[in-house]
Amino acid sequence: MAVTIKELAKALDAEFWGDGAIRVTGAGEPGQVDPVGPDGGQLALAMAPRYADAIRPGSVAILAQGMDPEAMGLKAAIFAPRPRLVLAGLTRAFDPGPDIAPGIHPSAVIDPSASIGEGAAIGPFVVVGADVVIGPGARIGPHVSIGRGSRIGRDAILHPGARVAHGVTAGDRLILQPNAVIGGDGFSFVTPEESGIEEIRRTLGDRAQIKAQHWTRIHSLGGVELGDDVEVGANSTIDRGTIRATRVGSGTKIDNLVQLGHNVVVGRDCLLCGHVGVAGSVTIGDRVVLAGKVGVSDNVSIGDDVIAGGATKIFTRVPAGRVILGNPAVKMETQMEIQKAMRRLPRFAQQLAQLQQTVTRLLEKG
Amino acid sequence: MAVTIKELAKALDAEFWGDGAIRVTGAGEPGQVDPVGPDGGQLALAMAPRYADAIRPGSVAILAQGMDPEAMGLKAAIFAPRPRLVLAGLTRAFDPGPDIAPGIHPSAVIDPSASIGEGAAIGPFVVVGADVVIGPGARIGPHVSIGRGSRIGRDAILHPGARVAHGVTAGDRLILQPNAVIGGDGFSFVTPEESGIEEIRRTLGDRAQIKAQHWTRIHSLGGVELGDDVEVGANSTIDRGTIRATRVGSGTKIDNLVQLGHNVVVGRDCLLCGHVGVAGSVTIGDRVVLAGKVGVSDNVSIGDDVIAGGATKIFTRVPAGRVILGNPAVKMETQMEIQKAMRRLPRFAQQLAQLQQTVTRLLEKG
Amino acid sequence: MAVTIKELAKALDAEFWGDGAIRVTGAGEPGQVDPVGPDGGQLALAMAPRYADAIRPGSVAILAQGMDPEAMGLKAAIFAPRPRLVLAGLTRAFDPGPDIAPGIHPSAVIDPSASIGEGAAIGPFVVVGADVVIGPGARIGPHVSIGRGSRIGRDAILHPGARVAHGVTAGDRLILQPNAVIGGDGFSFVTPEESGIEEIRRTLGDRAQIKAQHWTRIHSLGGVELGDDVEVGANSTIDRGTIRATRVGSGTKIDNLVQLGHNVVVGRDCLLCGHVGVAGSVTIGDRVVLAGKVGVSDNVSIGDDVIAGGATKIFTRVPAGRVILGNPAVKMETQMEIQKAMRRLPRFAQQLAQLQQTVTRLLEKG
Repeated sequence: MAVTIKELAKALDAEFWGDGAIRVTGAGEPGQVDPVGPDGGQLALAMAPRYADAIRPGSVAILAQGMDPEAMGLKAAIFAPRPRLVLAGLTRAFDPGPDIAPGIHPSAVIDPSASIGEGAAIGPFVVVGADVVIGPGARIGPHVSIGRGSRIGRDAILHPGARVAHGVTAGDRLILQPNAVIGGDGFSFVTPEESGIEEIRRTLGDRAQIKAQHWTRIHSLGGVELGDDVEVGANSTIDRGTIRATRVGSGTKIDNLVQLGHNVVVGRDCLLCGHVGVAGSVTIGDRVVLAGKVGVSDNVSIGDDVIAGGATKIFTRVPAGRVILGNPAVKMETQMEIQKAMRRLPRFAQQLAQLQQTVTRLLEKG
Repeated sequence: MAVTIKELAKALDAEFWGDGAIRVTGAGEPGQVDPVGPDGGQLALAMAPRYADAIRPGSVAILAQGMDPEAMGLKAAIFAPRPRLVLAGLTRAFDPGPDIAPGIHPSAVIDPSASIGEGAAIGPFVVVGADVVIGPGARIGPHVSIGRGSRIGRDAILHPGARVAHGVTAGDRLILQPNAVIGGDGFSFVTPEESGIEEIRRTLGDRAQIKAQHWTRIHSLGGVELGDDVEVGANSTIDRGTIRATRVGSGTKIDNLVQLGHNVVVGRDCLLCGHVGVAGSVTIGDRVVLAGKVGVSDNVSIGDDVIAGGATKIFTRVPAGRVILGNPAVKMETQMEIQKAMRRLPRFAQQLAQLQQTVTRLLEKG
Repeated sequence: MAVTIKELAKALDAEFWGDGAIRVTGAGEPGQVDPVGPDGGQLALAMAPRYADAIRPGSVAILAQGMDPEAMGLKAAIFAPRPRLVLAGLTRAFDPGPDIAPGIHPSAVIDPSASIGEGAAIGPFVVVGADVVIGPGARIGPHVSIGRGSRIGRDAILHPGARVAHGVTAGDRLILQPNAVIGGDGFSFVTPEESGIEEIRRTLGDRAQIKAQHWTRIHSLGGVELGDDVEVGANSTIDRGTIRATRVGSGTKIDNLVQLGHNVVVGRDCLLCGHVGVAGSVTIGDRVVLAGKVGVSDNVSIGDDVIAGGATKIFTRVPAGRVILGNPAVKMETQMEIQKAMRRLPRFAQQLAQLQQTVTRLLEKG
């Protein structure tokens, strides 16, 4: 696939300089892009002044505003007012898409009651259950399974080995990375009498008498509901709800190895990064960002626009708009002060001991 | 599927009020359950007084003891002495079970030497190795693989994509959620001479001389042994042992994305929540609860009835019955005090500095 | 499979004592190994003096230097100068290898343009895309998928359900544990205007004005490059790069449930333990060890020979050779001091308050 500089600039809603007719065949790092040849060339991604030295004369590049393509000896350049946004458009233009042949592979096992939309591409060994509805334009990779009664909107991409259990509904443009699991059973168990967990929540850590009990399973009758434009990362898991569905709002993006427990409700346009773990019945607002390895205790509520830094552990309610960090989570600025003080803690201990001695001497003198 | 109020109350070992002949067709949240119609209706789950307002007159409900069904205008009600226990029975009653057709799907590849119990349901593209024994009543979803010589008891449910390697044995009623992996190789490597890890364990952090060495693999000859009534969550992993088996006791429940290393021994009736990581050769007693994101260092021993709060990191032995929290783990009450003090730490620093000044002035005066 | 004591000692480059002709049929824990019979017997692994009491007379064993096989009544013994290194050789000798029949299973779907090396064993339901190259001696388990244009060196072992996306290259002797995912899309999104994350990085936590924005996807055009002798654990995920490849150097071993983000570069001979999470564009040197649950923030650089203890969280650059621990990461010895001081923190608070009172009284007196 190749487009001209001019076409690409137009598609990216950006300005260009130089020969707009040069054909762009791909993109690369500045140091690895060769000068343009008769069939065009790769576009060097040099969207900050520090990349200028690595660019080779005679090539084409994306530059930050204010960089001088003529001085670098370029043949053409596109200017990026917001570099990562341009990168989004550019990578979309050159992405050949997933490796799934058009049509339905003969090995796929599709229940006769299932409805597959127009233009769907379904790979080898896919299993589609009864009453499933898949929208038009879906691309479903090898070894995917979709359970009874699940419904997926248009233009979905389900990568190899993704699991959609029964009773899951998803909006349009769903992306499941490989081996993601939507709709596993919730982790919900109960003992005949009060369990140790219930006891220590009541007593804040005291245990009067320990009883040997077995865990009885609470089954998960609810499903999972995903909005439009949801993406779920490789090997991530979203459990089904107990009575009602576990829900993820439109536009929310979920990274790899993330766990969402039963009955969780996540709002719209959130980012949940790698290894985030959200326990059962948590409510998360809109536009919330949870950085890598953030954990959220069960039944906690997190307001809109909260941002939690890496590895933050959230045990209690977080009001809207707050920026938090640490274990347990506090405001980011408070955490910064705590960390500074912690590093000085061994010195505090010394100073305190000295001060005690001094005061003791003062007392003796006095 | 529908049962009457009277039948359901009996099955749940609970009392009922009102018209016992009304047919129950499912269960739902109080605000979403309609009044009973001619064919019965859903049961509103209102097992705490705070749900009373949401219930619609003319419907049927499960209530906590002491709530007044007549005042709410209900047609019938079941009383829950221990709500979550009733929920367990109720959800079991209405769970249609996994989406696997009876019989063995013709696409499954089953070694002739394998023995499949009566009444087994085996889905498309399942692979069963040589000498495998699967008990009666098993339901095995699409894309499951079971390696050479593994043995699984009766009434197992293996969800799509679950992996059972060779040499794994499991008791009755095993549940594997989608893409769970039982019996991957242990993560065990050795360098020709002392490695940096061995050195810093010996010196507590000092490194005399850094050598470039390669890692040699220690193969995993042991298998995995799971007791009865074990459940393993989606995308969780339990590694095989080096010489003897990695073991999980009966009644233990494991959530999603949990890692158990080689040679680990877990007792009976434990709960290991999401993202728990247990390194090699750890021993865990009976009825231990590890909350989400708890980590345990290799070779550590954890006594019976220990409860570790969310994100606790365990580096050393934990005696039986202890309730722990924090990184590194301390008694929960100690951790609470530490956290309180930490939040006041920046203020301490200030107070200490002031006090130093005051004492200095006192000294100068004196 | 059985070898004699003499053959085994030679293979392990170790010395032996007693009857070198005894046949060894396997290995086991000292307490579980029976005396040698007419067909030989298992080798008791007793590589430390504390195991001596458990050994049964008449058996054969591996012993640590200095232990006395005659006093234990053994028939033969092999001496281990470095026990775990001997264990490596021993377990390799007795490992029957993965459960994959020779040849290509007829159910496998292999693109005609793919090239499969000599002696490959390919299991049921494997899917191999266009232009894939697989080296000689590969053993590929059931339900593995390999995407368009990926290249894998000789003697690879790909366990069931492992996913290799398109454009991945790997050297020789690659091992992928079950359900590992190589080459999922990077987690990379951008908003039209400055996002909250960008804002708080700039302001260190302050948010002037919160805007509702949607996330636009940055596609991942780069692949993944793995060196020789790389092993990736069960359910681990390595994302593809944005423009260039995500890279893992030769000899590096990766445990279960590990996440490597897009554009990450990992050096040679590293160990990344369970639940390690490495965010996008991180650079990691050679021989780095990250213990379980270590997290690394995006764009951070970690020098050669760094060792990070369990659950360390790395937010900033780490110089070569450093041993670190804690959240946020500091030198291990500093962390030890901080932890000691933290446990004494509630007492500090008390002492400080007392001291303030004393000084106040002194001031009043003075």
